[in-house]
Amino acid sequence: MAASIKDVAKEAGVSIATVSRVLNDVDVVNEETKKKVMDAIKKLDYRPNIVARSLKTQKTRTIGIVIPDISSQFYPEIVRGAEDVSNIYNYNVILCNTDLDMEKEKEYIRVLKEKMVDGVIYMSSSLAPEIISLLQNLKLPTVLVETSEKEGTETEFCSVTIDNEKAAYEAVEYLIKKGNKKIAYIGVNPKMANASAIRFYGYKKALEENGLEFDEDLVQFGGLKAIDGSDGISAILKKAKFDAVFCAGDEIAMGAINALRENNIKVPEDVDVVGFDNIYTSSIFYPKLTTIEQPTYDMGSVGMRMLIKIINKKELDQKKYVLPHTLIERDSCKK
Amino acid sequence: MAASIKDVAKEAGVSIATVSRVLNDVDVVNEETKKKVMDAIKKLDYRPNIVARSLKTQKTRTIGIVIPDISSQFYPEIVRGAEDVSNIYNYNVILCNTDLDMEKEKEYIRVLKEKMVDGVIYMSSSLAPEIISLLQNLKLPTVLVETSEKEGTETEFCSVTIDNEKAAYEAVEYLIKKGNKKIAYIGVNPKMANASAIRFYGYKKALEENGLEFDEDLVQFGGLKAIDGSDGISAILKKAKFDAVFCAGDEIAMGAINALRENNIKVPEDVDVVGFDNIYTSSIFYPKLTTIEQPTYDMGSVGMRMLIKIINKKELDQKKYVLPHTLIERDSCKK
Repeated sequence: MAASIKDVAKEAGVSIATVSRVLNDVDVVNEETKKKVMDAIKKLDYRPNIVARSLKTQKTRTIGIVIPDISSQFYPEIVRGAEDVSNIYNYNVILCNTDLDMEKEKEYIRVLKEKMVDGVIYMSSSLAPEIISLLQNLKLPTVLVETSEKEGTETEFCSVTIDNEKAAYEAVEYLIKKGNKKIAYIGVNPKMANASAIRFYGYKKALEENGLEFDEDLVQFGGLKAIDGSDGISAILKKAKFDAVFCAGDEIAMGAINALRENNIKVPEDVDVVGFDNIYTSSIFYPKLTTIEQPTYDMGSVGMRMLIKIINKKELDQKKYVLPHTLIERDSCKK
Repeated sequence: MAASIKDVAKEAGVSIATVSRVLNDVDVVNEETKKKVMDAIKKLDYRPNIVARSLKTQKTRTIGIVIPDISSQFYPEIVRGAEDVSNIYNYNVILCNTDLDMEKEKEYIRVLKEKMVDGVIYMSSSLAPEIISLLQNLKLPTVLVETSEKEGTETEFCSVTIDNEKAAYEAVEYLIKKGNKKIAYIGVNPKMANASAIRFYGYKKALEENGLEFDEDLVQFGGLKAIDGSDGISAILKKAKFDAVFCAGDEIAMGAINALRENNIKVPEDVDVVGFDNIYTSSIFYPKLTTIEQPTYDMGSVGMRMLIKIINKKELDQKKYVLPHTLIERDSCKK
């Protein structure tokens, strides 16, 4: 039989109300009494009814993680980083897959509020006004991870991201320094205004600032999957010649390399390819992908650490974290 | 301002106690009154305090998912399948990463109980006696997913798995039918008694029943990562010649193929390779992997459906689900 709060009170020689005050961290108990209670709790292996306490404290030590899809390659590391930190601070995470469906996002956020989560880690393509007002109305502490706020509408939300434009700029500059003149781009249409779409601007800027002409025929917009990479290569091959490809995602790059191979174009001998994200398989793929590493685990852990600070009204060093990215040189570009 | 239970009672013209009875599904309210209350709830967009209700009903509509590591390739699809089904039935999932550390597993299970989850999906390498007794003592409805129960100690827990031995048998028989005589094995040591380790027995049986001699020099035990595949190939190449390799995991197979390539051995021209799991990247890898598909999404969704039935005391068609696997023919074996 599990120990009750009554047993703890008896063991410690104090009243039930005193035990309750200790449990709820109310500061009117003197240190000596507190120690007695804590010792009794330890001795009896007493575990308070967390749900009942949650009602009193209005804290559940539970955090919602709202993501597009845990089964896509990019998110598991972020979630792992977030969950590890939550575990350290004795929080648990509720996982919500939204498929970027805003109705689903809204429903999840409402349910999370009903279940009295202490806060939310929110990841989506971009932050819609409806979501902003919902989160604000529900007074849910929120940290955005890799979720772009539309320019000119920066919100009060804390966020963790990388500098996607700068990272893309560096990748393309790297290709230019290798002597490439005709650099193709396969990625998401920048009209989508999400984190990965922004990479297009970095591509364009790197060309311009290095005196290379921007050529529409070398650009193909689509999704972030391998099929988008192979379709992209097929489309560009019909229109123009190129000596390098910058892909706004590693899966795109893998699909592109496969399509190039099918067209008897060798990577890196004939064409250099750079990806983006450094997903787990980019180092297993053949050839091993040169890519921009996003610090996914850190994005999750830093985001969760911020959120827990916000929940506990601790001061933050900064509200908008831009984490460093890294160009990882492997075998898909000439040495 | 959100509507309260008082507002609902006023709108419906009934007492607060009646609204509460309707919310808690107590059957003493007549249909007409029930309808009035439901209409008022809808009209006012009233959302009851789920946490307070949880204390009364002892149900939180929350389910714990205990897994080794969400960031490894195999688990995200399972979790996605489980979460999709939980969402359909208005449950949420708490995600717990254990790294197969039993102390961490036990702590998570205790916390999940304290947070009053309605049940647990448990995934680990195998089911330890300590975990069995903990789950039973805490009276937590549990479904095991891809978690082997040691032979002779089959428990009362419901489970979802595939027939790992049979699947491995079929993979090896497939290689034999291609005319291969010397088939290597890279996988987990069967002493580990987990789901993937069992595959070794299928390998051995297929050799025996097809009149091929088992050769220890062709077997290499290790982990499930790409590095284990490349290390495995290096080790076997020093000891023996072979014309095919069966790998007990796709990442192993990818590492093996890379190592073969570095040794100027072509796949599939010189050596056939079959993997296991059909993780997402096996169809993007070069060459595309021939492999055994585990129905990961279904394992999660079937497991969750079973668990929700158990929680709601619905009858189950069966307690131990063995889902079908499929051999997927791609490009890593000769045609």
